[in-house]
Amino acid sequence: MAQEENCRAPDGPTAPGKSRAPGRSPAPEKLPVPEHSTIGRVVAVMSGKGGVGKSTVAALLAATLARDGHRVGVLDADITGPSIPRLFGVKAMAAPVGFGIIPARTPSGIQIMSLNLLLPREDDPVIWRGPLISGAVRQFWTDVVWGDLDYLVVDLPPGTGDAPLTVLQSLPVDGIVFVTSPQDLAAMVVRKAVRMARLLKVPIAGLVENMTSFRCPECGRETPVFGARRAGELFASLDLRVLGSLPLDPALSELGDRGDIERYEAPFLRAVPSLLDGLTRAEATAETHGPARAETTAETHGPARAETTAEMTKGRCLER
Amino acid sequence: MAQEENCRAPDGPTAPGKSRAPGRSPAPEKLPVPEHSTIGRVVAVMSGKGGVGKSTVAALLAATLARDGHRVGVLDADITGPSIPRLFGVKAMAAPVGFGIIPARTPSGIQIMSLNLLLPREDDPVIWRGPLISGAVRQFWTDVVWGDLDYLVVDLPPGTGDAPLTVLQSLPVDGIVFVTSPQDLAAMVVRKAVRMARLLKVPIAGLVENMTSFRCPECGRETPVFGARRAGELFASLDLRVLGSLPLDPALSELGDRGDIERYEAPFLRAVPSLLDGLTRAEATAETHGPARAETTAETHGPARAETTAEMTKGRCLER
Repeated sequence: MAQEENCRAPDGPTAPGKSRAPGRSPAPEKLPVPEHSTIGRVVAVMSGKGGVGKSTVAALLAATLARDGHRVGVLDADITGPSIPRLFGVKAMAAPVGFGIIPARTPSGIQIMSLNLLLPREDDPVIWRGPLISGAVRQFWTDVVWGDLDYLVVDLPPGTGDAPLTVLQSLPVDGIVFVTSPQDLAAMVVRKAVRMARLLKVPIAGLVENMTSFRCPECGRETPVFGARRAGELFASLDLRVLGSLPLDPALSELGDRGDIERYEAPFLRAVPSLLDGLTRAEATAETHGPARAETTAETHGPARAETTAEMTKGRCLER
Repeated sequence: MAQEENCRAPDGPTAPGKSRAPGRSPAPEKLPVPEHSTIGRVVAVMSGKGGVGKSTVAALLAATLARDGHRVGVLDADITGPSIPRLFGVKAMAAPVGFGIIPARTPSGIQIMSLNLLLPREDDPVIWRGPLISGAVRQFWTDVVWGDLDYLVVDLPPGTGDAPLTVLQSLPVDGIVFVTSPQDLAAMVVRKAVRMARLLKVPIAGLVENMTSFRCPECGRETPVFGARRAGELFASLDLRVLGSLPLDPALSELGDRGDIERYEAPFLRAVPSLLDGLTRAEATAETHGPARAETTAETHGPARAETTAEMTKGRCLER
């Protein structure tokens, strides 16, 4: 079996949104910016592997950006296993109006759209095949009244199937934040997703290593439950910058379960906006000098240096 | 949006395989038993949620059945994020022959088929939309030379999309083993999958609670990292039998990473064959007395009693 039979890389670089640099023609596959919205930068959170904390990282990233004063939205592209409303404690249904759907709002003002906001019960199954799943993802971009956003965070489902493919092909994604756990097995699947992003020429901001270790509340001993941290090694061939790490923290799990994810802080995620700026600049350079240069730029922020930063910037629960 | 627009429940009860009771006509959607194989019982391992240990439980179930002298196969239906070959340490490619594909064999003789056994590199991405994913799942049933198996364990991907739908609609699944973690968030998504199985009238053998707690190797303190165990409560409305639990065990994670999953023992999984027998009997009764009766049978094995059993039968690493 061929392995990209169904996959078409976009013809050109990522298409610009309304608020982007003029003079670049949009690639034909990309959807236009929705009529009633202005969307600054689009950042996708992806893994390939399930259960490594994509939704948690997406929610923490959105909360970090909102805390820094940005206008933020979260598009939950995990149509069959949506976690975003739960993490933010949002139970209100999204409101359909004449010209689109009004997203729900979290306590700190983040706008969210998720299939679970359209269901009468949060555990109603959505038994859909691929074309409907892709259609819902596209509708969440086109028909949702996002308003004016600085950042739209897109939470992807596991795998490299319909929803991730639709997001990377149809939405003007400025950069991807990958999430992995320290297991070799997880890393193997995450590498598939990284290679998918490279094939589709979508820029990558970096990698978050989640569930790195557990600190015993009794004796303080740290155990690397899923194996030693070695993202640098496991992703070395792919030149990914490690943005930071999150521990296996019962507090984080509990905040997520009770819809208080906005109270957890992962300061290393504050670096994402400047990284996205860098990716856009690299892409602009690439348009003049060809794609090779952009990859070289990514290499200069190699994993070795970032790991040190990560050690200093682990996630923690906000005391407020 | 309607939530089962694309989903058609089979018209009749699960179709029998070659080796089943005669006199029942197969439902039209079910695929016939492959030409060169005899497959006894088909058990699907499902969750809806990613990363809760579906593949680990599928592998442990297969290893348990093989240890008890059964002939076992594992069909890895997670086409875009396959973990099965890694867990069993299998690197050989599957061998296409004139009349089908010969599956790979694990050290203990379990036959496995996975998309990763068809790829030159295990981290090659499979960027496929739904129809191709469903096609691959069907081919793994129809075109693989399974030979004579007592049990075929099917490892499902997360979600309630193409691959799970194809397995539950097209394969003669005798029973499903669900896997969850103690997080409320995970349970909410797993309930979606349970309700999908009920809608499609596929019988459920029970639920495995994974990653229930972590025991500090220094001081022995057990911490419920993902929250207190309360599967009984979270799944109470769905009348699911809790089969047992697995701790958050670095030994299990390490065995999986180095392909030695067959060395870990989860004795509670030995109950699965008799549970599947019970489901088939209940189904046969249901054919005479209608579906209500079968559900009542399932209810008599309520979660309360099973939990006690689970406490006694946690997983452990085999000393051999």
